[in-house]
Amino acid sequence: MDDAAGLAIAYEEAQKSYEEGGIPIGAALISSTGTGTVLGRGHNQRVQLGSPIHHGETATLLNAGRLLASSYSNSTMYTTLSPCDMCTGAILLYKIPRVVIGENSTFRAAGEDYLRQRGVEVVVVDDQECRMLMERFIGEKPEVWWEDIGELSILNSSPSTKVK
Amino acid sequence: MDDAAGLAIAYEEAQKSYEEGGIPIGAALISSTGTGTVLGRGHNQRVQLGSPIHHGETATLLNAGRLLASSYSNSTMYTTLSPCDMCTGAILLYKIPRVVIGENSTFRAAGEDYLRQRGVEVVVVDDQECRMLMERFIGEKPEVWWEDIGELSILNSSPSTKVK
Repeated sequence: MDDAAGLAIAYEEAQKSYEEGGIPIGAALISSTGTGTVLGRGHNQRVQLGSPIHHGETATLLNAGRLLASSYSNSTMYTTLSPCDMCTGAILLYKIPRVVIGENSTFRAAGEDYLRQRGVEVVVVDDQECRMLMERFIGEKPEVWWEDIGELSILNSSPSTKVK
Repeated sequence: MDDAAGLAIAYEEAQKSYEEGGIPIGAALISSTGTGTVLGRGHNQRVQLGSPIHHGETATLLNAGRLLASSYSNSTMYTTLSPCDMCTGAILLYKIPRVVIGENSTFRAAGEDYLRQRGVEVVVVDDQECRMLMERFIGEKPEVWWEDIGELSILNSSPSTKVK
């Protein structure tokens, strides 16, 4: 499966979450061997489940179920938005070697740099659809977007890092 | 609430998981203001739910529900075992300023060092009960313990780091 097709699945998940009234971030875990089996797909469910741990990437890992280490190490994580620290850590825990990110304009934490530092290949597509969906959501429901992470602050890890 | 009492709750959760046939890692999120309200408590549920994302700390955050940023920033995370990368990331995401770890002899990833690097206070208790419970479980069900993370490898981040 090529990156555009993988990201399209992640975007479908983000749209689904938006339509459910949730935070529109979606992801998909796709095998990098053979025909590119979709191992899992999912979206943020903070609003839908009242869950602070069901993010796009983690919901995807949950939906993929218990996998062997070898499945993770031969897969790519597609996500519509630059990963937060938790999802960054989940990618590292399972040694997923490659991450394709829809956009990092509306949110960017320390994750991208840390993934690269730990040897993960990170591709940022700068996809307009992903960005527009997030901008629309943040404009409509800023109180949900800012609820759990709080006020603007500047991370020290990278001068170019945009944070919320 | 003092650290011994907080860790005791995390250990109760680990024991509960062991009795359920699961991985015996437990955690508790406790407010550091007032009398020390238990905001959440939980345990690993990889076996029980077939979930790769319900670890001790993340299950605790899930059980705590949707909290405001100010609740997280005035709390301590107690965990029976040194946090994996995902749980490290969850602690950073929610800006939990202090982590008390039961033991780091049976497992230690890059998490502790990264937490300190990002300004989190990390206390390692070296609790014998926590260590014995993990050693017992790993001895009894090594295939479950090694299933998802795979073979032994050496992390570059710290010469003293023990990894699985």
